[in-house]
Amino acid sequence: MNAPPTLQAKALAALAAAMPEGTLLTADRELERYSIDWTGDHYGRPLAVARPRSVEEVSLLMRHCSTEGLHVVPQGGLTGLVGAAVASHPAGEVVVSLERLNKVRSVNPIDFAMIVEAGCILEDAKKQAETADCILPITFGAQGSCRIGGNVATNAGGFNVLRYGMTRDLVLGLEVVLADGRVWNGLKTLRKDNRGYDLKQIFIGSEGTLGVITAAALKIFPKPTQVETALVGVASVEKAMELYARARRECSDLLTAFELILRGGIEIAINSPGRLSDPLSQPYPVYVLIEASAGGRVDLRSLLDGFLADADDIVLDGVVASSRAQGDRLWLLREMMVEWQGRGGRYLRTDVSVPISGLSAFVTDALAALKQAHPEALPVTYGHVGDGNIHLNVVPPEHMNPEDVEALFHATEKVIFDVIDRHGGSISAEHGIGKVKQQAFLERADPVALDLAGRIKDALDPLHIMSEGRILAARGVGGHG
Amino acid sequence: MNAPPTLQAKALAALAAAMPEGTLLTADRELERYSIDWTGDHYGRPLAVARPRSVEEVSLLMRHCSTEGLHVVPQGGLTGLVGAAVASHPAGEVVVSLERLNKVRSVNPIDFAMIVEAGCILEDAKKQAETADCILPITFGAQGSCRIGGNVATNAGGFNVLRYGMTRDLVLGLEVVLADGRVWNGLKTLRKDNRGYDLKQIFIGSEGTLGVITAAALKIFPKPTQVETALVGVASVEKAMELYARARRECSDLLTAFELILRGGIEIAINSPGRLSDPLSQPYPVYVLIEASAGGRVDLRSLLDGFLADADDIVLDGVVASSRAQGDRLWLLREMMVEWQGRGGRYLRTDVSVPISGLSAFVTDALAALKQAHPEALPVTYGHVGDGNIHLNVVPPEHMNPEDVEALFHATEKVIFDVIDRHGGSISAEHGIGKVKQQAFLERADPVALDLAGRIKDALDPLHIMSEGRILAARGVGGHG
Repeated sequence: MNAPPTLQAKALAALAAAMPEGTLLTADRELERYSIDWTGDHYGRPLAVARPRSVEEVSLLMRHCSTEGLHVVPQGGLTGLVGAAVASHPAGEVVVSLERLNKVRSVNPIDFAMIVEAGCILEDAKKQAETADCILPITFGAQGSCRIGGNVATNAGGFNVLRYGMTRDLVLGLEVVLADGRVWNGLKTLRKDNRGYDLKQIFIGSEGTLGVITAAALKIFPKPTQVETALVGVASVEKAMELYARARRECSDLLTAFELILRGGIEIAINSPGRLSDPLSQPYPVYVLIEASAGGRVDLRSLLDGFLADADDIVLDGVVASSRAQGDRLWLLREMMVEWQGRGGRYLRTDVSVPISGLSAFVTDALAALKQAHPEALPVTYGHVGDGNIHLNVVPPEHMNPEDVEALFHATEKVIFDVIDRHGGSISAEHGIGKVKQQAFLERADPVALDLAGRIKDALDPLHIMSEGRILAARGVGGHG
Repeated sequence: MNAPPTLQAKALAALAAAMPEGTLLTADRELERYSIDWTGDHYGRPLAVARPRSVEEVSLLMRHCSTEGLHVVPQGGLTGLVGAAVASHPAGEVVVSLERLNKVRSVNPIDFAMIVEAGCILEDAKKQAETADCILPITFGAQGSCRIGGNVATNAGGFNVLRYGMTRDLVLGLEVVLADGRVWNGLKTLRKDNRGYDLKQIFIGSEGTLGVITAAALKIFPKPTQVETALVGVASVEKAMELYARARRECSDLLTAFELILRGGIEIAINSPGRLSDPLSQPYPVYVLIEASAGGRVDLRSLLDGFLADADDIVLDGVVASSRAQGDRLWLLREMMVEWQGRGGRYLRTDVSVPISGLSAFVTDALAALKQAHPEALPVTYGHVGDGNIHLNVVPPEHMNPEDVEALFHATEKVIFDVIDRHGGSISAEHGIGKVKQQAFLERADPVALDLAGRIKDALDPLHIMSEGRILAARGVGGHG
């Protein structure tokens, strides 16, 4: 797409004329930062970038795009990892950046609810919740860059799903601009509301394909006054999952994280530029980072100490942080592992899930299959195993040439997904489908489910102008309908 | 509808011929028990009752009903309270009773998940969960009669929403027979799965209008080893809500119930045939029934005692049950109140919600408005106030004639709903819309929301044969489309 065809140029000119001054960027140099995602893996130059300042301006934009037949793609913090939010449709797309719709509209510690605009950066929303002595529990690495609208549109997961649920579970209401520009006002902070179909559910996790989310009402929670963190070494993933089964029963749903890290991941962290020290007295095959949180009336430290002491048939060694700072250092091991797993280069990310009871067998099978098929690849295995969610990533050998790296990624992903299929798992636990997982998703999808999804798409975006070609195949490009 | 017209008789005959022996009831005396709901308030004679024994038979049934243009209404335990599950369409309806699809297919205490067929009675499913030392936390009065499919189709609430969420929050996967007879197999026990649109959400809470739910995969939880129950007296609803705000912070999300009962409700219970004694040393305007649950490593009793002792500026008097039996007796007060509020006769049920911060003002305003407009009516006020959900019911004066009772219900509901509108609340927090709330729902609904709901209906049930006329107006009867 070097020069857009005349019709498209006319449509863009009409859109530019309709939008208020300064809300539509078209100059090449201005488009650059909206063209590439956080990882650098996904690039797509949009026709233009709209930067609406209000719901009314989003509505105006969508009305005109719909009339002019312009494709649009809503964009948040570009941290989604599956290439859904950069331009990619062959006919060209207008990016709708929500970055100027970034206010926290309200925080109410009695309702335990806050209303946040889509462009608000997650960390900013979290800070606002803390001013009311509450927490917004969505927590993951990209929280300083990702935006609430993207969190909702992708049903973001993270560390605290175990206790607080996925983003879907935290949404009380939404405000959405539809493909034709109409505004659906479903913003409300009611905790129970069974008035007909729960329309917000349709937009959550739809990855921008059904509407532009402009604001969300979210559940917040009392800020825990105690947080305890432990890192323990165990003999195997199976032992880690046994520990989890006991922890669920003995820790009264006070667990806020239960993160698995294989030894290889710990080694990445201790060899990273952070130069972290090996956390336990000797190496263990498998580590678990455990976090529990509570208010003031529970003796959380003795609960965790007692639990770990009684689990001495599983726990080979461990440390319970004696201060928040020490707890943060334990978490730093995990962060450094994620940051340095690719040695600054590219690596294959996967994000799979299986039923909890099958997780240990899945990891064993997948690592064995990888070792057999691609002994040259370095697997890095970690995840939110309390949710059955594993990130089994693959690092290429050093100095491999880019084409071979690409081929290795393709081949190892297939190995991992084949094992996932045998274990009845999901190829996307928390990252979504976007463009990157689309082929693997469509190959595996039940035709009835695809037909239903296509009907929903047709019903809400009959012209197929919204993020067309993400999740489902683009219309007329070998897809449904 | 005395004699069905010839075409309908032909369609029914064709259906009867297609279905296996014994799966279609048509004799008048056999239809009776499928014609009236639990309350006795809703009656509708179906054309026939199908009693499929398998998903395949549900599929066969729907394929034929779809081909023959026969309307259908799925039916569970008939405890839904809004008249959605008895026949009501003027063209006649075939009831699809799920009562023979009643197996618990699996219980897995490691996955913390169970798979239950739609016709399984909730209490039976709960007992099965307990055999694995787990709980299925959906809990309410009708649990001995209601069925899982109905719980999912209505997104049932109840006592434990505070801790465990609505039924929607507990559903991991669904199996659904679509209007055209195809089976969508979305049964899975994955705790995280972001593969495209979350189709199950569309069926949850759709009250039978979009498909026949045949089975559900549900979250279960470790069975608490400690349950503490307290009943306290406070000066006002406002004070009760202050106590709630503190309890959320101080009890570390271990609360499993926080039920408000006004003095009038306690009086109903102590004057019921159960002859319960007045629970506290003297009467108080407002009571709160508090339940907290935990595993063995929390000193739950001292947590609750300490919390209540420190709240002595709010709590005027109270009792913490010293045994499970005493706890059950405290709960019996609430059950007897619900059972005897109508003195064995009819009463108006409402099921409204407001943001938690507005609950006290709502109750004050609603009771004042009722007293002014209808001093002859006896309001009974109780609810799951931790969720902002109040049942504000109206009992008619004794010996009022039936027409006047009907008029009183109509007038007092309007009074209550008008106050709900002023407080930004919902006219249906947990019971759904069905037929009973339909007019009030449609009067208040946002046209954009109604249009979206209509599009979903058209997409999933294009012939409009599924529970037509529940939630949305029936097509061609002044409705959408």
